[in-house]
Amino acid sequence: MKKKIIVDMDGVLADVYPRLFDIHEKETGDRLSAEDIAGKLEEEAFPNQRRWVSEPGFFRTLPVMEGSRKVLEKLNKEYDIIVVSLATEFPNSLTDKLMWLKEHFSFISWKQIVFCGDKSLIKADIMIDDHPKNLDNFAGKTYIFTQPLNLHNNNSKHTRVNSWAEIEKILIP
Amino acid sequence: MKKKIIVDMDGVLADVYPRLFDIHEKETGDRLSAEDIAGKLEEEAFPNQRRWVSEPGFFRTLPVMEGSRKVLEKLNKEYDIIVVSLATEFPNSLTDKLMWLKEHFSFISWKQIVFCGDKSLIKADIMIDDHPKNLDNFAGKTYIFTQPLNLHNNNSKHTRVNSWAEIEKILIP
Repeated sequence: MKKKIIVDMDGVLADVYPRLFDIHEKETGDRLSAEDIAGKLEEEAFPNQRRWVSEPGFFRTLPVMEGSRKVLEKLNKEYDIIVVSLATEFPNSLTDKLMWLKEHFSFISWKQIVFCGDKSLIKADIMIDDHPKNLDNFAGKTYIFTQPLNLHNNNSKHTRVNSWAEIEKILIP
Repeated sequence: MKKKIIVDMDGVLADVYPRLFDIHEKETGDRLSAEDIAGKLEEEAFPNQRRWVSEPGFFRTLPVMEGSRKVLEKLNKEYDIIVVSLATEFPNSLTDKLMWLKEHFSFISWKQIVFCGDKSLIKADIMIDDHPKNLDNFAGKTYIFTQPLNLHNNNSKHTRVNSWAEIEKILIP
């Protein structure tokens, strides 16, 4: 039986930080760097983040994370892939996120997509995520995808990956 | 620890059939009854159903199933309730369904909501659903909520419930 992998969207498939830096600069005139906000959650790093992500369209036009499409398509042949996104807090995000996945990851079927408010509801063997809150209580193997919010995370339970090229090296035999 | 219940939306919390009968009559002039379509899936009973449910707005204005709000609010105190809806096939349904839940079931937090394409991903103790395809492979206790599509279902694994009043009698001690 294929192993099941839970793959996160924001910060893993969708490259959300460049967009957050841009909007923050536009609103405040201040260009932040990853080091400026290292270890802070998005809503701590960007005080207006909740307003931005509540608006229709925010998630529809995010850039695709470098290398993610090619590697996820390979993983999709070797593993049971489930794309799981914490999305039910923001009603407008849902349709945008699904349309975005259909556009950029058309090989992922609608049966492989979960939008929820608590990832611990979903059982799997492997999790790839940038949020320690999702990874810490996951029973299987955990990969922490480097993003500013987790730069200072040293939990030895998680294997750090800095790119989809690294994920490919580890997970594709 | 509280037992976890997966509660379906369409046909269980949202009273979808009256709307399907109405649209079908409007388009064809033919008023169907529950007996006319007994045992048929929605898409078999209503050939245009997929077009209807793909349009923005369809799920936003469905009537609330009689008694569901009052009983689910009671269950929400005694059990871990997760509202799980097969929704990722239809992008426009997602935001509509979440707004509908926020309006009519405001006591259900966004952390208790899952939109997915395969309910077998979610583990729980009890499932209340109208679709045998969701109930048949569920490992826990199953309640089949009477709707036309399951009128002829005689799977002895499932306990049939005809109303939220019956669910209350069974599940509230």
